[in-house]
Amino acid sequence: MTIQAAFYTGHKTFTLEPKEAPAPAAGEVQIDVAYVGICGTDMHVFHGNMDARVGNHRVIGHEMSGTVAALGEGVEGFAPGDRVVVRPLAHCGECPACQAGYQHICHRLKFLGLDTDGALQEKWNVPAYTVHKLPADMSLETAAMIEPLAVAVHDVKRARLQAGETALVIGGGPIGMLIAMVAQAEGAKVILSEINANRLNMAAEMGFTGLNPREGNVAEQVMEITGTKGADVVFEVSGTQPGVDLMTAAAATRGRICMVAIHAKPAQVDLFRFFWRELEMVGARVYEAADYDRAIEMIAEGLDVARLITDRHPLASVQQAFEALDGNATAMKTLIRIGETA
Amino acid sequence: MTIQAAFYTGHKTFTLEPKEAPAPAAGEVQIDVAYVGICGTDMHVFHGNMDARVGNHRVIGHEMSGTVAALGEGVEGFAPGDRVVVRPLAHCGECPACQAGYQHICHRLKFLGLDTDGALQEKWNVPAYTVHKLPADMSLETAAMIEPLAVAVHDVKRARLQAGETALVIGGGPIGMLIAMVAQAEGAKVILSEINANRLNMAAEMGFTGLNPREGNVAEQVMEITGTKGADVVFEVSGTQPGVDLMTAAAATRGRICMVAIHAKPAQVDLFRFFWRELEMVGARVYEAADYDRAIEMIAEGLDVARLITDRHPLASVQQAFEALDGNATAMKTLIRIGETA
Ligand SMILES: [Zn+2]
Ligand SMILES: [Zn+2]
Repeated sequence: MTIQAAFYTGHKTFTLEPKEAPAPAAGEVQIDVAYVGICGTDMHVFHGNMDARVGNHRVIGHEMSGTVAALGEGVEGFAPGDRVVVRPLAHCGECPACQAGYQHICHRLKFLGLDTDGALQEKWNVPAYTVHKLPADMSLETAAMIEPLAVAVHDVKRARLQAGETALVIGGGPIGMLIAMVAQAEGAKVILSEINANRLNMAAEMGFTGLNPREGNVAEQVMEITGTKGADVVFEVSGTQPGVDLMTAAAATRGRICMVAIHAKPAQVDLFRFFWRELEMVGARVYEAADYDRAIEMIAEGLDVARLITDRHPLASVQQAFEALDGNATAMKTLIRIGETA
Repeated sequence: MTIQAAFYTGHKTFTLEPKEAPAPAAGEVQIDVAYVGICGTDMHVFHGNMDARVGNHRVIGHEMSGTVAALGEGVEGFAPGDRVVVRPLAHCGECPACQAGYQHICHRLKFLGLDTDGALQEKWNVPAYTVHKLPADMSLETAAMIEPLAVAVHDVKRARLQAGETALVIGGGPIGMLIAMVAQAEGAKVILSEINANRLNMAAEMGFTGLNPREGNVAEQVMEITGTKGADVVFEVSGTQPGVDLMTAAAATRGRICMVAIHAKPAQVDLFRFFWRELEMVGARVYEAADYDRAIEMIAEGLDVARLITDRHPLASVQQAFEALDGNATAMKTLIRIGETA
């Protein structure tokens, strides 16, 4: 059967090509893809920063939703038509990380949609163990937010956030905003540090205390808000040196800092503050299966992640979708519609 | 009653002066000081780096042992002659740290022997809540090691070290060596990174794997020793940039890094590695009451911390003791003998 697929072909270009869809192999599920979200990593691919990893003829896309089309040999627990999402991680099972139970950060991790072809195509075959079933009534458009929501759930879990605590989120992009929403849903008082006015407006609408580091000293403001205590938990999502400076300055004694951002270069860290206030920092990367389960549950319980969806394009306009998102100060999450139904 | 006290009077100078010993106030215990250890902080005072904090007429000294001389009004649970050590921390009880249960890192912490007069005198009055009783048969010379041993106990506790894990200790001074000893006693396999040949010899005698970063790539060696896994726990005790580079490079996936060293300036930290391998870092400062209890227990159970005592001087030679320790490559721990008995 011939399907349409969007291939990244280098030089900020996607080309739509017909492709023969293989039947699902043993252990695989074939999915009719409904929606694919564009994330920061996809934008990195678009900019050519990941050419060494993805090559110049790769179907990308890993934030997605869809319905089961067909099952490969030996696959149980799914039926055609089931609404599903994919947790796009394939682990080796043998490295020290896998053996210690941390398959999601396997030393030889393959990321589906980067290291293998991804979701920007009409039919996608994936290992059955990566597939999570959704409630039958869950919107597939909303469900395309489950992957980034699972990142946020993982981050909040790593930070051991407790109800009643104050959480400072540094950086209000899609992941920062989702972390803020999860933290709030878990009972935290949320402060968001962000320079973009649109994002600060959105933060205010959601009940977060927005602080702009260009208009004041955020660390001092956090100390004021918390009665000199500081933030119990800090999420560094900005990937910037000022964010790294803020994370130690604003944390409470014994505060937990969750390192969410990808800092491509080493940053200057106030290690004295770590010693003096017995701070803690935990790195957090992608998600575990339980984080997907919790993300699905939170949406089912009413967490309105769909409000972050600002732009929608059909698969035929994938090139325009990436171009429109590039450097866009008002867009939050762009979805590509693949199938015709929602 | 007139006693002898050693006052730090600035300019790398101690002067012995007679001093009237006050009776213990209500809530205080008066101690006949037996031994006082010299630590890195005391050397900082000697070098004039802490003049703004200690002034130029201060009795320093906080690593100590002694016997109860007299009790102030309302003090119970001690009797004259009891062997004791002092946990030299006075907290405010009101700041956010105290209210959260972290009195040992109180935001207005007073350190006895720096912010108040310390143990380099024949009789020392301290708040009763800082005093820990020793077994009647414990050597007072050995007991002078309890304060630094409690630091090591606290560090190992903060790192949540488990029996069977591999611990990398970066820096083999007295605190690094004590951390290595505690980690080994708790069932860990210990690797020590150190450039000083004397310390590497001592490490070998104690059954630690010594690695010299001037003679090889310690991170690679740790990966070899651990079968590519890396160290489960890393203690950064060196206070150097190469130590900070090593701590992230040598840690296992989900490895815990304990920040023991005092980094006076921000250091370059590989935050990408924190993200990628979901590393964790915890700051650790001084000790809690339970750490003192455990340190006393470990010595009672036979932990041979006395082997680290390399030099002994009487109070009358305190000036020579500090001069002899300054830049000494073979000394580990110097004790000042105050009382006449052991
Ligand atoms: Zn693996
Ligand atoms: Zn306090």
